[in-house]
Amino acid sequence: MKTTIIGLGLIGGSIAIDLRKSGIATDLVGIDLNQAHATKAVELGLVDRIETEDKAIANADLIILAIPVSALVQLIPSILDSIKKTAVVIDTGSTKSSICKAVSHHEHRQQFVAAHQIAGTENSGPEAAFSGLFLNKTNIICEREKSSDHTLAVAEKVFAKLGLNTIYMEPEEHDKHVAYVSHLSHVSSFLLGQTVLDIERDEKNIFALAGSGFSSTVRLAKSSPDMWAPIFEQNAEYLSQALLEYIMHLQKFQYHLMKRDVKELHRIMKDANHIREVLNGIEIKANKQ
Amino acid sequence: MKTTIIGLGLIGGSIAIDLRKSGIATDLVGIDLNQAHATKAVELGLVDRIETEDKAIANADLIILAIPVSALVQLIPSILDSIKKTAVVIDTGSTKSSICKAVSHHEHRQQFVAAHQIAGTENSGPEAAFSGLFLNKTNIICEREKSSDHTLAVAEKVFAKLGLNTIYMEPEEHDKHVAYVSHLSHVSSFLLGQTVLDIERDEKNIFALAGSGFSSTVRLAKSSPDMWAPIFEQNAEYLSQALLEYIMHLQKFQYHLMKRDVKELHRIMKDANHIREVLNGIEIKANKQ
Repeated sequence: MKTTIIGLGLIGGSIAIDLRKSGIATDLVGIDLNQAHATKAVELGLVDRIETEDKAIANADLIILAIPVSALVQLIPSILDSIKKTAVVIDTGSTKSSICKAVSHHEHRQQFVAAHQIAGTENSGPEAAFSGLFLNKTNIICEREKSSDHTLAVAEKVFAKLGLNTIYMEPEEHDKHVAYVSHLSHVSSFLLGQTVLDIERDEKNIFALAGSGFSSTVRLAKSSPDMWAPIFEQNAEYLSQALLEYIMHLQKFQYHLMKRDVKELHRIMKDANHIREVLNGIEIKANKQ
Repeated sequence: MKTTIIGLGLIGGSIAIDLRKSGIATDLVGIDLNQAHATKAVELGLVDRIETEDKAIANADLIILAIPVSALVQLIPSILDSIKKTAVVIDTGSTKSSICKAVSHHEHRQQFVAAHQIAGTENSGPEAAFSGLFLNKTNIICEREKSSDHTLAVAEKVFAKLGLNTIYMEPEEHDKHVAYVSHLSHVSSFLLGQTVLDIERDEKNIFALAGSGFSSTVRLAKSSPDMWAPIFEQNAEYLSQALLEYIMHLQKFQYHLMKRDVKELHRIMKDANHIREVLNGIEIKANKQ
Protein backbone atom coordinates (compact mmCIF):
# COMPACT_ATOMS: atom_id res chain seq x y z
CA MET A 1 0.00 0.00 0.00
CA LYS A 2 1.05 3.55 -0.65
CA THR A 3 1.53 4.75 2.90
CA THR A 4 1.90 8.29 4.18
CA ILE A 5 3.10 8.89 7.70
CA ILE A 6 2.52 12.32 9.18
CA GLY A 7 4.86 12.98 12.08
CA LEU A 8 8.20 11.21 11.93
CA GLY A 9 9.12 10.96 15.61
CA LEU A 10 9.36 7.97 17.93
CA ILE A 11 5.84 6.72 17.13
CA GLY A 12 5.60 7.56 13.43
CA GLY A 13 9.16 6.38 12.79
CA SER A 14 8.67 3.08 14.62
CA ILE A 15 5.45 2.43 12.69
CA ALA A 16 7.29 3.14 9.42
CA ILE A 17 10.06 0.64 10.23
CA ASP A 18 7.68 -2.22 11.02
CA LEU A 19 5.17 -1.55 8.23
CA ARG A 20 7.99 -1.70 5.71
CA LYS A 21 9.38 -4.88 7.29
CA SER A 22 5.98 -6.56 7.21
CA GLY A 23 5.48 -5.68 3.55
CA ILE A 24 2.32 -3.66 4.15
CA ALA A 25 3.92 -0.38 3.12
CA THR A 26 5.32 -0.72 -0.38
CA ASP A 27 5.84 3.00 -0.81
CA LEU A 28 6.54 5.13 2.25
CA VAL A 29 6.06 8.89 2.15
CA GLY A 30 6.72 11.12 5.14
CA ILE A 31 5.59 14.56 6.28
CA ASP A 32 6.94 16.49 9.22
CA LEU A 33 6.64 20.19 10.02
CA ASN A 34 10.05 19.93 11.64
CA GLN A 35 12.41 20.07 8.63
CA ALA A 36 15.31 18.53 10.55
CA HIS A 37 13.17 15.57 11.56
CA ALA A 38 11.97 15.11 7.98
CA THR A 39 15.52 15.10 6.62
CA LYS A 40 16.72 12.76 9.37
CA ALA A 41 13.83 10.33 8.72
CA VAL A 42 14.85 9.99 5.06
CA GLU A 43 18.51 9.68 6.03
CA LEU A 44 17.67 6.88 8.48
CA GLY A 45 15.57 5.18 5.81
CA LEU A 46 12.39 5.39 7.87
CA VAL A 47 10.54 6.73 4.80
CA ASP A 48 11.42 6.75 1.10
CA ARG A 49 10.89 10.47 0.61
CA ILE A 50 9.23 13.64 1.83
CA GLU A 51 6.37 15.07 -0.23
CA THR A 52 4.13 18.10 0.03
CA GLU A 53 1.10 17.55 2.21
CA ASP A 54 -1.41 17.86 -0.66
CA LYS A 55 0.31 15.28 -2.85
CA ALA A 56 1.15 12.87 -0.03
CA ILE A 57 -2.45 12.85 1.14
CA ALA A 58 -4.18 12.69 -2.25
CA ASN A 59 -2.17 9.66 -3.41
CA ALA A 60 -2.13 7.56 -0.25
CA ASP A 61 -3.97 4.29 0.41
CA LEU A 62 -3.07 4.49 4.06
CA ILE A 63 -2.41 7.60 6.15
CA ILE A 64 -1.12 7.34 9.69
CA LEU A 65 -0.89 10.40 11.90
CA ALA A 66 1.61 10.53 14.76
CA ILE A 67 1.58 14.18 15.76
CA PRO A 68 0.53 16.07 18.92
CA VAL A 69 -3.16 15.67 19.76
CA SER A 70 -3.82 19.39 19.28
CA ALA A 71 -2.66 19.03 15.67
CA LEU A 72 -4.73 15.86 15.16
CA VAL A 73 -7.94 17.69 16.00
CA GLN A 74 -7.08 20.35 13.40
CA LEU A 75 -5.71 18.13 10.69
CA ILE A 76 -7.86 14.99 10.52
CA PRO A 77 -11.04 16.70 9.25
CA SER A 78 -9.16 18.40 6.41
CA ILE A 79 -7.39 15.15 5.50
CA LEU A 80 -10.74 13.37 5.32
CA ASP A 81 -11.83 16.11 2.88
CA SER A 82 -9.16 15.26 0.35
CA ILE A 83 -8.36 11.54 0.43
CA LYS A 84 -9.09 8.80 -2.11
CA LYS A 85 -12.39 6.96 -1.66
CA THR A 86 -10.67 3.76 -0.58
CA ALA A 87 -8.04 5.36 1.61
CA VAL A 88 -7.81 4.63 5.34
CA VAL A 89 -6.77 7.17 7.97
CA ILE A 90 -5.50 6.06 11.40
CA ASP A 91 -4.40 8.19 14.31
CA THR A 92 -2.21 7.41 17.31
CA GLY A 93 -3.33 10.11 19.75
CA SER A 94 -3.23 9.63 23.53
CA THR A 95 -6.64 11.27 23.93
CA LYS A 96 -9.71 10.16 22.02
CA SER A 97 -12.79 12.25 22.95
CA SER A 98 -11.69 15.53 21.31
CA ILE A 99 -10.55 13.74 18.18
CA CYS A 100 -13.73 11.67 17.85
CA LYS A 101 -15.82 14.81 18.36
CA ALA A 102 -13.85 16.71 15.71
CA VAL A 103 -14.75 14.16 13.00
CA SER A 104 -18.10 13.04 14.37
CA HIS A 105 -20.20 14.54 11.57
CA HIS A 106 -17.65 14.40 8.78
CA GLU A 107 -19.06 12.82 5.62
CA HIS A 108 -15.99 10.55 5.38
CA ARG A 109 -15.92 9.60 9.08
CA GLN A 110 -16.13 5.92 8.08
CA GLN A 111 -12.67 6.12 6.48
CA PHE A 112 -11.10 6.98 9.83
CA VAL A 113 -10.07 4.73 12.73
CA ALA A 114 -9.61 6.46 16.10
CA ALA A 115 -6.84 4.52 17.81
CA HIS A 116 -4.29 4.73 20.59
CA GLN A 117 -1.35 2.38 21.00
CA ILE A 118 -0.10 2.13 24.60
CA ALA A 119 3.57 2.24 23.70
CA GLY A 120 6.38 4.72 23.90
CA THR A 121 9.54 5.68 25.67
CA GLU A 122 10.65 8.93 27.26
CA ASN A 123 12.68 9.68 24.11
CA SER A 124 11.44 11.49 21.02
CA GLY A 125 12.38 12.32 17.42
CA PRO A 126 13.18 10.04 14.45
CA GLU A 127 16.40 8.74 16.06
CA ALA A 128 14.32 7.33 18.93
CA ALA A 129 12.32 5.10 16.53
CA PHE A 130 12.92 1.35 16.65
CA SER A 131 11.48 -1.92 15.39
CA GLY A 132 9.32 -3.79 17.86
CA LEU A 133 8.09 -0.80 19.87
CA PHE A 134 4.50 -2.05 19.55
CA LEU A 135 5.09 -5.77 20.04
CA ASN A 136 2.55 -7.23 22.50
CA LYS A 137 1.38 -3.77 23.48
CA THR A 138 -2.28 -2.80 23.78
CA ASN A 139 -4.11 -0.86 21.07
CA ILE A 140 -7.45 0.78 21.73
CA ILE A 141 -9.94 1.50 18.95
CA CYS A 142 -12.71 3.93 19.82
CA GLU A 143 -16.11 4.22 18.11
CA ARG A 144 -15.41 1.12 16.05
CA GLU A 145 -18.96 1.21 14.68
CA LYS A 146 -18.26 4.54 12.98
CA SER A 147 -15.53 3.06 10.77
CA SER A 148 -16.57 1.11 7.66
CA ASP A 149 -15.85 -2.62 7.47
CA HIS A 150 -13.20 -2.03 4.82
CA THR A 151 -11.51 0.69 6.89
CA LEU A 152 -11.54 -1.45 10.02
CA ALA A 153 -10.18 -4.48 8.17
CA VAL A 154 -7.21 -2.49 6.82
CA ALA A 155 -6.52 -0.87 10.17
CA GLU A 156 -6.68 -4.14 12.06
CA LYS A 157 -4.25 -5.71 9.61
CA VAL A 158 -1.86 -2.81 10.24
CA PHE A 159 -2.18 -3.19 14.02
CA ALA A 160 -1.71 -6.95 13.85
CA LYS A 161 1.46 -6.54 11.76
CA LEU A 162 2.83 -4.16 14.39
CA GLY A 163 2.24 -6.87 16.99
CA LEU A 164 -0.49 -4.94 18.82
CA ASN A 165 -3.41 -6.52 20.69
CA THR A 166 -6.52 -4.50 19.94
CA ILE A 167 -9.35 -3.82 22.37
CA TYR A 168 -12.42 -1.59 21.91
CA MET A 169 -13.61 1.20 24.14
CA GLU A 170 -15.69 4.36 24.14
CA PRO A 171 -13.69 7.63 23.89
CA GLU A 172 -14.77 8.94 27.31
CA GLU A 173 -13.95 5.66 29.01
CA HIS A 174 -10.55 5.63 27.27
CA ASP A 175 -9.74 9.17 28.34
CA LYS A 176 -10.73 8.54 31.94
CA HIS A 177 -8.62 5.38 32.16
CA VAL A 178 -5.49 6.88 30.64
CA ALA A 179 -5.81 9.88 32.96
CA TYR A 180 -5.11 7.47 35.83
CA VAL A 181 -2.72 4.91 34.37
CA SER A 182 -0.69 7.14 32.07
CA HIS A 183 -1.21 10.89 32.33
CA LEU A 184 -1.09 11.00 36.14
CA SER A 185 2.19 9.02 36.13
CA HIS A 186 3.69 11.62 33.82
CA VAL A 187 2.55 14.57 35.93
CA SER A 188 3.78 12.92 39.15
CA SER A 189 7.14 12.28 37.52
CA PHE A 190 7.56 15.79 36.05
CA LEU A 191 6.84 17.39 39.43
CA LEU A 192 8.91 14.96 41.45
CA GLY A 193 11.78 15.92 39.17
CA GLN A 194 11.02 19.62 39.66
CA THR A 195 10.83 19.30 43.45
CA VAL A 196 14.28 17.77 43.57
CA LEU A 197 15.76 20.18 41.03
CA ASP A 198 14.45 23.03 43.23
CA ILE A 199 16.11 21.80 46.39
CA GLU A 200 19.33 21.16 44.51
CA ARG A 201 19.80 24.91 44.18
CA ASP A 202 20.41 25.03 47.95
CA GLU A 203 21.76 21.55 48.50
CA LYS A 204 24.67 20.92 46.18
CA ASN A 205 25.63 17.33 45.39
CA ILE A 206 22.23 16.06 46.44
CA PHE A 207 22.21 13.74 43.43
CA ALA A 208 25.19 11.81 44.80
CA LEU A 209 22.55 10.13 46.95
CA ALA A 210 20.13 9.32 44.14
CA GLY A 211 19.83 5.66 43.25
CA SER A 212 17.91 3.47 40.84
CA GLY A 213 14.62 4.07 42.67
CA PHE A 214 14.84 7.78 41.99
CA SER A 215 15.73 7.18 38.32
CA SER A 216 12.75 4.92 37.91
CA THR A 217 10.21 7.34 39.37
CA VAL A 218 11.44 10.43 37.51
CA ARG A 219 12.24 8.79 34.16
CA LEU A 220 9.04 10.13 32.59
CA ALA A 221 10.08 13.70 33.48
CA LYS A 222 12.32 13.47 30.43
CA SER A 223 9.24 13.31 28.17
CA SER A 224 8.49 15.89 25.49
CA PRO A 225 6.41 18.92 26.64
CA ASP A 226 5.38 19.49 22.99
CA MET A 227 3.64 16.14 23.02
CA TRP A 228 2.29 16.21 26.57
CA ALA A 229 0.97 19.77 27.00
CA PRO A 230 -1.80 19.26 24.39
CA ILE A 231 -2.66 15.83 25.84
CA PHE A 232 -3.10 17.31 29.30
CA GLU A 233 -5.19 20.16 27.86
CA GLN A 234 -7.55 17.79 26.03
CA ASN A 235 -7.84 15.51 29.04
CA ALA A 236 -7.93 18.30 31.63
CA GLU A 237 -11.15 17.22 33.36
CA TYR A 238 -10.23 13.60 34.02
CA LEU A 239 -6.59 14.35 34.73
CA SER A 240 -7.57 17.08 37.16
CA GLN A 241 -9.80 14.64 39.03
CA ALA A 242 -7.00 12.06 39.14
CA LEU A 243 -4.56 14.70 40.37
CA LEU A 244 -6.93 15.79 43.15
CA GLU A 245 -7.26 12.21 44.36
CA TYR A 246 -3.50 11.74 44.25
CA ILE A 247 -2.92 15.00 46.16
CA MET A 248 -5.49 13.93 48.76
CA HIS A 249 -3.62 10.65 49.30
CA LEU A 250 -0.33 12.52 49.67
CA GLN A 251 -1.85 14.97 52.15
CA LYS A 252 -3.32 12.17 54.26
CA PHE A 253 0.05 10.46 54.28
CA GLN A 254 1.73 13.68 55.37
CA TYR A 255 -0.84 14.12 58.15
CA HIS A 256 -0.12 10.65 59.55
CA LEU A 257 3.60 11.27 59.13
CA MET A 258 3.46 14.46 61.20
CA LYS A 259 1.48 12.61 63.88
CA ARG A 260 4.13 9.84 63.80
CA ASP A 261 1.29 7.37 63.27
CA VAL A 262 3.58 4.60 62.04
CA LYS A 263 0.84 1.99 62.21
CA GLU A 264 -1.30 3.96 59.77
CA LEU A 265 1.65 4.67 57.44
CA HIS A 266 2.36 0.94 57.46
CA ARG A 267 -1.26 0.13 56.63
CA ILE A 268 -1.30 2.57 53.70
CA MET A 269 1.86 1.06 52.23
CA LYS A 270 0.61 -2.48 52.80
CA ASP A 271 -2.53 -1.62 50.81
CA ALA A 272 -0.47 -0.05 48.03
CA ASN A 273 1.63 -3.24 47.86
CA HIS A 274 -1.30 -4.81 45.97
CA ILE A 275 0.04 -3.01 42.93
CA ARG A 276 2.57 -5.87 42.83
CA GLU A 277 0.02 -8.23 41.30
CA VAL A 278 -0.96 -5.59 38.74
CA LEU A 279 2.64 -4.96 37.77
CA ASN A 280 3.35 -8.67 37.46
CA GLY A 281 0.46 -8.81 35.00
CA ILE A 282 1.88 -5.93 32.96
CA GLU A 283 5.33 -7.50 32.94
CA ILE A 284 4.03 -10.88 31.87
CA LYS A 285 2.20 -9.15 29.02
CA ALA A 286 5.33 -7.22 28.04
CA ASN A 287 7.57 -10.30 28.03
CA LYS A 288 5.18 -12.46 26.05
CA GLN A 289 6.72 -13.20 22.69
CA MET B 1 37.39 -12.25 59.80
CA LYS B 2 34.68 -13.81 61.89
CA THR B 3 31.68 -11.97 60.53
CA THR B 4 28.19 -11.75 61.97
CA ILE B 5 25.38 -10.40 59.85
CA ILE B 6 22.22 -9.33 61.64
CA GLY B 7 19.27 -9.26 59.27
CA LEU B 8 19.42 -11.70 56.37
CA GLY B 9 17.27 -9.96 53.78
CA LEU B 10 18.15 -8.32 50.46
CA ILE B 11 20.86 -6.09 51.97
CA GLY B 12 22.32 -8.41 54.60
CA GLY B 13 22.21 -11.39 52.24
CA SER B 14 23.88 -9.51 49.38
CA ILE B 15 26.63 -8.29 51.72
CA ALA B 16 27.18 -11.88 52.90
CA ILE B 17 27.58 -13.18 49.34
CA ASP B 18 30.19 -10.60 48.35
CA LEU B 19 32.14 -10.61 51.61
CA ARG B 20 32.56 -14.36 51.32
CA LYS B 21 33.57 -14.05 47.65
CA SER B 22 36.16 -11.39 48.43
CA GLY B 23 37.69 -13.51 51.21
CA ILE B 24 37.01 -10.94 53.93
CA ALA B 25 34.50 -13.13 55.76
CA THR B 26 36.15 -16.43 56.61
CA ASP B 27 33.38 -17.46 58.99
CA LEU B 28 29.86 -16.19 58.41
CA VAL B 29 27.29 -16.25 61.18
CA GLY B 30 23.74 -15.02 60.69
CA ILE B 31 20.98 -13.76 62.96
CA ASP B 32 17.41 -13.02 61.93
CA LEU B 33 14.32 -12.62 64.10
CA ASN B 34 12.34 -14.13 61.23
CA GLN B 35 12.98 -17.87 61.64
CA ALA B 36 11.99 -18.64 58.05
CA HIS B 37 14.48 -16.08 56.74
CA ALA B 38 17.23 -17.49 58.98
CA THR B 39 16.63 -21.05 57.76
CA LYS B 40 16.43 -19.92 54.13
CA ALA B 41 19.69 -17.95 54.43
CA VAL B 42 21.56 -21.07 55.60
CA GLU B 43 19.88 -23.16 52.88
CA LEU B 44 20.98 -20.65 50.23
CA GLY B 45 24.50 -20.66 51.67
CA LEU B 46 24.40 -16.93 52.43
CA VAL B 47 25.76 -17.68 55.93
CA ASP B 48 27.44 -20.77 57.42
CA ARG B 49 25.11 -21.05 60.41
CA ILE B 50 22.71 -19.32 62.73
CA GLU B 51 23.83 -18.65 66.31
CA THR B 52 22.25 -17.09 69.38
CA GLU B 53 22.62 -13.34 69.50
CA ASP B 54 24.90 -13.35 72.57
CA LYS B 55 27.37 -15.83 71.10
CA ALA B 56 27.33 -14.39 67.58
CA ILE B 57 28.07 -10.90 68.92
CA ALA B 58 30.68 -11.82 71.55
CA ASN B 59 32.83 -13.80 69.08
CA ALA B 60 32.68 -11.56 66.00
CA ASP B 61 35.45 -9.42 64.52
CA LEU B 62 32.99 -7.72 62.23
CA ILE B 63 29.27 -7.16 62.82
CA ILE B 64 27.05 -5.78 60.07
CA LEU B 65 23.48 -4.80 60.79
CA ALA B 66 20.89 -4.82 58.01
CA ILE B 67 17.61 -4.49 59.89
CA PRO B 68 14.88 -1.81 60.03
CA VAL B 69 16.13 1.55 61.33
CA SER B 70 13.84 1.37 64.38
CA ALA B 71 15.63 -1.85 65.42
CA LEU B 72 19.07 -0.32 64.72
CA VAL B 73 18.44 2.47 67.23
CA GLN B 74 17.53 -0.15 69.86
CA LEU B 75 20.16 -2.72 69.11
CA ILE B 76 23.42 -0.92 68.30
CA PRO B 77 24.01 0.48 71.83
CA SER B 78 23.58 -2.97 73.40
CA ILE B 79 25.84 -4.56 70.79
CA LEU B 80 28.54 -2.00 71.55
CA ASP B 81 28.22 -3.04 75.22
CA SER B 82 29.21 -6.62 74.53
CA ILE B 83 31.67 -6.81 71.63
CA LYS B 84 35.37 -7.67 71.56
CA LYS B 85 37.76 -4.72 71.94
CA THR B 86 38.92 -4.98 68.33
CA ALA B 87 35.52 -5.68 66.79
CA VAL B 88 33.98 -3.34 64.22
CA VAL B 89 30.25 -2.64 63.93
CA ILE B 90 28.75 -1.26 60.71
CA ASP B 91 25.16 -0.38 59.99
CA THR B 92 23.28 0.01 56.70
CA GLY B 93 20.36 2.21 57.79
CA SER B 94 18.63 4.63 55.43
CA THR B 95 18.46 7.29 58.15
CA LYS B 96 21.49 8.46 60.08
CA SER B 97 20.58 11.17 62.63
CA SER B 98 18.60 8.97 65.05
CA ILE B 99 21.22 6.24 64.90
CA CYS B 100 24.14 8.61 65.45
CA LYS B 101 22.30 10.21 68.37
CA ALA B 102 21.56 6.82 69.94
CA VAL B 103 25.28 5.96 70.18
CA SER B 104 26.65 9.47 70.55
CA HIS B 105 27.82 9.10 74.16
CA HIS B 106 28.49 5.36 74.14
CA GLU B 107 31.92 4.51 75.54
CA HIS B 108 32.60 2.26 72.51
CA ARG B 109 31.28 4.72 69.92
CA GLN B 110 34.65 4.58 68.11
CA GLN B 111 34.07 0.91 67.22
CA PHE B 112 31.01 1.84 65.17
CA VAL B 113 30.74 3.18 61.62
CA ALA B 114 27.44 4.86 60.74
CA ALA B 115 26.92 4.09 57.05
CA HIS B 116 24.28 3.98 54.34
CA GLN B 117 24.71 2.28 51.00
CA ILE B 118 22.49 3.70 48.25
CA ALA B 119 21.50 0.35 46.81
CA GLY B 120 18.48 -1.87 46.82
CA THR B 121 15.61 -3.19 44.78
CA GLU B 122 11.89 -3.29 45.49
CA ASN B 123 12.26 -6.94 46.55
CA SER B 124 13.06 -8.21 50.03
CA GLY B 125 14.03 -11.34 51.96
CA PRO B 126 17.05 -13.67 51.59
CA GLU B 127 15.93 -14.90 48.16
CA ALA B 128 16.21 -11.34 46.85
CA ALA B 129 19.95 -11.19 47.72
CA PHE B 130 22.47 -11.21 44.89
CA SER B 131 26.15 -10.65 44.17
CA GLY B 132 27.02 -7.20 42.83
CA LEU B 133 24.16 -5.27 44.41
CA PHE B 134 26.63 -2.66 45.70
CA LEU B 135 28.92 -2.44 42.68
CA ASN B 136 29.65 1.23 41.82
CA LYS B 137 26.97 2.43 44.20
CA THR B 138 27.47 5.28 46.65
CA ASN B 139 28.16 4.69 50.32
CA ILE B 140 27.83 7.48 52.89
CA ILE B 141 29.74 7.45 56.16
CA CYS B 142 28.49 9.87 58.80
CA GLU B 143 30.49 11.26 61.73
CA ARG B 144 33.64 9.70 60.40
CA GLU B 145 35.68 11.44 63.11
CA LYS B 146 33.83 9.50 65.81
CA SER B 147 35.12 6.14 64.53
CA SER B 148 38.66 5.08 65.44
CA ASP B 149 41.28 4.78 62.71
CA HIS B 150 41.27 0.99 63.05
CA THR B 151 37.49 0.81 62.84
CA LEU B 152 37.39 3.09 59.82
CA ALA B 153 40.15 1.14 58.06
CA VAL B 154 38.28 -2.16 58.46
CA ALA B 155 34.98 -0.63 57.36
CA GLU B 156 36.48 1.05 54.31
CA LYS B 157 38.06 -2.24 53.27
CA VAL B 158 34.64 -3.89 53.55
CA PHE B 159 33.00 -1.13 51.48
CA ALA B 160 35.74 -1.25 48.86
CA LYS B 161 35.37 -5.03 48.51
CA LEU B 162 31.64 -4.58 47.94
CA GLY B 163 32.48 -2.17 45.11
CA LEU B 164 31.08 0.89 46.88
CA ASN B 165 32.36 4.44 46.46
CA THR B 166 32.41 6.10 49.85
CA ILE B 167 31.66 9.76 50.55
CA TYR B 168 31.39 11.55 53.91
CA MET B 169 28.54 13.62 55.21
CA GLU B 170 26.96 14.88 58.42
CA PRO B 171 23.87 12.91 59.60
CA GLU B 172 21.46 15.84 59.25
CA GLU B 173 22.69 16.65 55.75
CA HIS B 174 22.36 12.97 54.81
CA ASP B 175 18.82 12.72 56.13
CA LYS B 176 17.72 15.89 54.36
CA HIS B 177 19.16 14.75 51.03
CA VAL B 178 17.68 11.26 51.12
CA ALA B 179 14.30 12.75 52.03
CA TYR B 180 14.27 14.32 48.56
CA VAL B 181 16.08 11.82 46.35
CA SER B 182 14.90 8.58 47.93
CA HIS B 183 12.13 8.78 50.54
CA LEU B 184 9.94 11.17 48.53
CA SER B 185 10.18 8.89 45.47
CA HIS B 186 8.92 6.02 47.57
CA VAL B 187 5.99 7.98 49.00
CA SER B 188 5.02 9.31 45.56
CA SER B 189 5.10 5.78 44.19
CA PHE B 190 3.11 4.17 47.02
CA LEU B 191 0.36 6.78 46.69
CA LEU B 192 0.29 6.78 42.91
CA GLY B 193 -0.28 3.04 43.18
CA GLN B 194 -3.02 3.58 45.75
CA THR B 195 -4.77 6.24 43.65
CA VAL B 196 -4.99 3.87 40.71
CA LEU B 197 -5.99 0.87 42.84
CA ASP B 198 -8.83 3.02 44.23
CA ILE B 199 -10.24 3.97 40.86
CA GLU B 200 -9.95 0.38 39.68
CA ARG B 201 -12.78 -0.56 42.06
CA ASP B 202 -15.14 1.44 39.83
CA GLU B 203 -13.33 1.12 36.52
CA LYS B 204 -12.71 -2.53 35.75
CA ASN B 205 -9.95 -3.41 33.31
CA ILE B 206 -8.29 -0.05 33.77
CA PHE B 207 -4.91 -1.79 33.85
CA ALA B 208 -5.34 -2.95 30.27
CA LEU B 209 -4.24 0.60 29.45
CA ALA B 210 -1.18 0.66 31.71
CA GLY B 211 2.15 0.64 29.96
CA SER B 212 5.84 0.70 30.83
CA GLY B 213 5.66 4.32 32.03
CA PHE B 214 3.14 3.35 34.68
CA SER B 215 5.24 0.35 35.75
CA SER B 216 8.29 2.52 36.11
CA THR B 217 6.65 5.16 38.30
CA VAL B 218 4.88 2.72 40.64
CA ARG B 219 7.63 0.09 40.88
CA LEU B 220 8.68 1.33 44.33
CA ALA B 221 5.13 0.79 45.63
CA LYS B 222 6.11 -2.87 45.88
CA SER B 223 8.62 -2.01 48.63
CA SER B 224 8.42 -3.46 52.15
CA PRO B 225 6.31 -1.45 54.65
CA ASP B 226 8.24 -3.11 57.51
CA MET B 227 11.40 -1.49 56.23
CA TRP B 228 9.96 1.87 55.15
CA ALA B 229 7.55 2.80 57.97
CA PRO B 230 10.40 3.21 60.52
CA ILE B 231 12.51 5.14 57.97
CA PHE B 232 9.69 7.59 57.35
CA GLU B 233 9.12 7.95 61.11
CA GLN B 234 12.77 8.73 61.79
CA ASN B 235 12.97 11.16 58.88
CA ALA B 236 9.50 12.65 59.40
CA GLU B 237 10.59 16.31 59.53
CA TYR B 238 12.60 16.40 56.32
CA LEU B 239 10.28 14.06 54.46
CA SER B 240 7.28 16.12 55.50
CA GLN B 241 8.94 19.25 54.13
CA ALA B 242 9.75 17.48 50.86
CA LEU B 243 6.18 16.19 50.61
CA LEU B 244 4.75 19.68 51.15
CA GLU B 245 6.90 21.07 48.36
CA TYR B 246 5.89 18.22 46.06
CA ILE B 247 2.19 18.72 46.87
CA MET B 248 2.56 22.47 46.20
CA HIS B 249 4.01 21.74 42.76
CA LEU B 250 1.15 19.32 42.00
CA GLN B 251 -1.45 21.86 43.12
CA LYS B 252 0.06 24.60 40.98
CA PHE B 253 0.04 22.27 38.01
CA GLN B 254 -3.57 21.39 38.63
CA TYR B 255 -4.45 25.10 38.86
CA HIS B 256 -2.88 25.82 35.45
CA LEU B 257 -4.53 22.69 34.08
CA MET B 258 -7.99 23.84 35.14
CA LYS B 259 -7.32 27.26 33.60
CA ARG B 260 -6.19 25.48 30.41
CA ASP B 261 -2.97 27.50 30.61
CA VAL B 262 -1.09 25.25 28.19
CA LYS B 263 1.81 27.65 27.89
CA GLU B 264 2.47 27.48 31.61
CA LEU B 265 2.09 23.68 31.69
CA HIS B 266 4.59 23.50 28.85
CA ARG B 267 7.03 25.75 30.72
CA ILE B 268 6.80 23.63 33.90
CA MET B 269 7.52 20.44 31.95
CA LYS B 270 10.36 22.08 30.02
CA ASP B 271 11.98 23.04 33.32
CA ALA B 272 11.54 19.54 34.71
CA ASN B 273 13.22 18.16 31.57
CA HIS B 274 16.53 19.27 33.11
CA ILE B 275 16.32 16.11 35.17
CA ARG B 276 17.55 14.40 31.99
CA GLU B 277 21.14 15.53 32.64
CA VAL B 278 20.92 14.34 36.23
CA LEU B 279 19.60 10.94 35.20
CA ASN B 280 22.28 10.56 32.55
CA GLY B 281 24.82 11.10 35.33
CA ILE B 282 23.22 8.42 37.50
CA GLU B 283 23.09 5.98 34.61
CA ILE B 284 26.72 6.57 33.68
CA LYS B 285 27.64 5.90 37.31
CA ALA B 286 25.54 2.72 37.38
CA ASN B 287 27.00 1.35 34.15
CA LYS B 288 30.60 2.05 35.06
CA GLN B 289 32.40 -1.24 35.49
